[in-house]
Amino acid sequence: MPDVLPSWRKTPTRNSIVEFVAAVTDPDADTFVPEVDRVAVFDNDGTLSTENPYAQLAFAMDRAAELGKPTTPEELEAGGIPAVLELVKLTHGSITTDEFDAAVRTWIATARHPRFGRSYAAMVYQPMIELLGLLHANGFSCWIFSGGGTDFMRAWAPSVFGVPPHRIIGSTGAVTFQIGVSGPELLKGADVAVLDDGAQKPISIHRSLGQRPIFAAGNTDGDLPMLRWTAGSPHQSLQLVVHHTDADREYAYDKDPLLGSGTEQVLAAAAADGWTVVDMATDWSAIYSTG
Amino acid sequence: MPDVLPSWRKTPTRNSIVEFVAAVTDPDADTFVPEVDRVAVFDNDGTLSTENPYAQLAFAMDRAAELGKPTTPEELEAGGIPAVLELVKLTHGSITTDEFDAAVRTWIATARHPRFGRSYAAMVYQPMIELLGLLHANGFSCWIFSGGGTDFMRAWAPSVFGVPPHRIIGSTGAVTFQIGVSGPELLKGADVAVLDDGAQKPISIHRSLGQRPIFAAGNTDGDLPMLRWTAGSPHQSLQLVVHHTDADREYAYDKDPLLGSGTEQVLAAAAADGWTVVDMATDWSAIYSTG
Repeated sequence: MPDVLPSWRKTPTRNSIVEFVAAVTDPDADTFVPEVDRVAVFDNDGTLSTENPYAQLAFAMDRAAELGKPTTPEELEAGGIPAVLELVKLTHGSITTDEFDAAVRTWIATARHPRFGRSYAAMVYQPMIELLGLLHANGFSCWIFSGGGTDFMRAWAPSVFGVPPHRIIGSTGAVTFQIGVSGPELLKGADVAVLDDGAQKPISIHRSLGQRPIFAAGNTDGDLPMLRWTAGSPHQSLQLVVHHTDADREYAYDKDPLLGSGTEQVLAAAAADGWTVVDMATDWSAIYSTG
Repeated sequence: MPDVLPSWRKTPTRNSIVEFVAAVTDPDADTFVPEVDRVAVFDNDGTLSTENPYAQLAFAMDRAAELGKPTTPEELEAGGIPAVLELVKLTHGSITTDEFDAAVRTWIATARHPRFGRSYAAMVYQPMIELLGLLHANGFSCWIFSGGGTDFMRAWAPSVFGVPPHRIIGSTGAVTFQIGVSGPELLKGADVAVLDDGAQKPISIHRSLGQRPIFAAGNTDGDLPMLRWTAGSPHQSLQLVVHHTDADREYAYDKDPLLGSGTEQVLAAAAADGWTVVDMATDWSAIYSTG
């Protein structure tokens, strides 16, 4: 039988995943979970893909420059969250959903990561792609609950992760329905209406999915409520925390410098409750696809 | 071949449905639509099931009585929308999602419709159940976008309509994530945050589904934006309006007396744009299942 997790080294981390999947799919075991309840949820930035920089922020900066209002990383860092929200307003608002979708698709086809020179769609973690495949092959439905924008994610992520658009839920702005010159359209507003992070993640999971997952993966304190919500399932469940420990092949950090999201609480909860922590440097033999 | 729409009389209405399904599933036709794009959306109250009275309103009144604060239909009618919102606050708020789910399940198992004596879960239209089956058998994914509450619908509708919980989207209140005595829980707030009606329906479809449907069914002006949004699909599409014309077997009305939702605009749009209108009295040979 071919190894379905070839980029995962044979460590206890990998074992805990393989054992969990075996436990919930064995019809003779007490731990068996019917297929309809095999639901897995993933954070995106930093969990499924590199978040340094956020792909969506890179898109926003490129789009701001295109719109004649360029900004620099230094200006953003100095301005903090308010500067980021201004940038989002400029680059994500007052545009129809169809136009925005086209703008993201054009961008993702050409933009390259500054350090690795790869497409942002190729900055996804090969071991996590393999994990999605393993879960899918074992009857799981996999969903992504991202702090990033729903519309941004859906323009490129479905084919990359093999997940249909409705299973990708993120932050959203206010949207207006109107009859435009070429027919009915949805106009994206300038302000963030729902920031899908922290306590909002389990709320969004309840609203959009309507079932309690038995598997969750995240990487920051913003994913802690989602991980806890999943840990409260009456079924056997697995909580996975991706820890960025690999400065050579990716990045090593415990706190996001721009948005300030840390890892202190989520790592403490993982230690206290026996969750599975991925040490990227030791658990993964490859970070990105070599294809 | 057995008739898959036995409760639909052989009228032009039925023909337009059968011809639409044939057109989008014929791989040799110009009108062919790939399976991934075969998405259908349905309103619930008055489209898939009887809305006189709203099942959720009957639930709310029974629950209010149980909570020691009974109200009468006359009081509600006199109080209008504000009285309805007060009733929702009392009966849908300050309760965890798990507790609310249990309360609805208990209620639906015992409550009976005042005129027909049937369970509210059996007040669904047999012809629409057959239509859902026909679409499903032809590669469609069917979704429900209801003005009713998401949590209320999901407690009984999935098994009745054969639609998984995540494909049932409705109105929602503010929800709080908290760690309760028995673990993490979601507490339902008292106020309606998103009323999934009118222009909100295409917005909710975009947010939760992320694709433009090619089939929509509704029955009031509140469904008009959803029908228009679907009619704007680049693919061949079908818009279906259920018209309540059968006082003997169900009800005949053009305006909901309590919430005031009418049919004038949606029937005018159907006439102008050639949408398919179901005349319940003549198009359906049965209204409810006889099982």
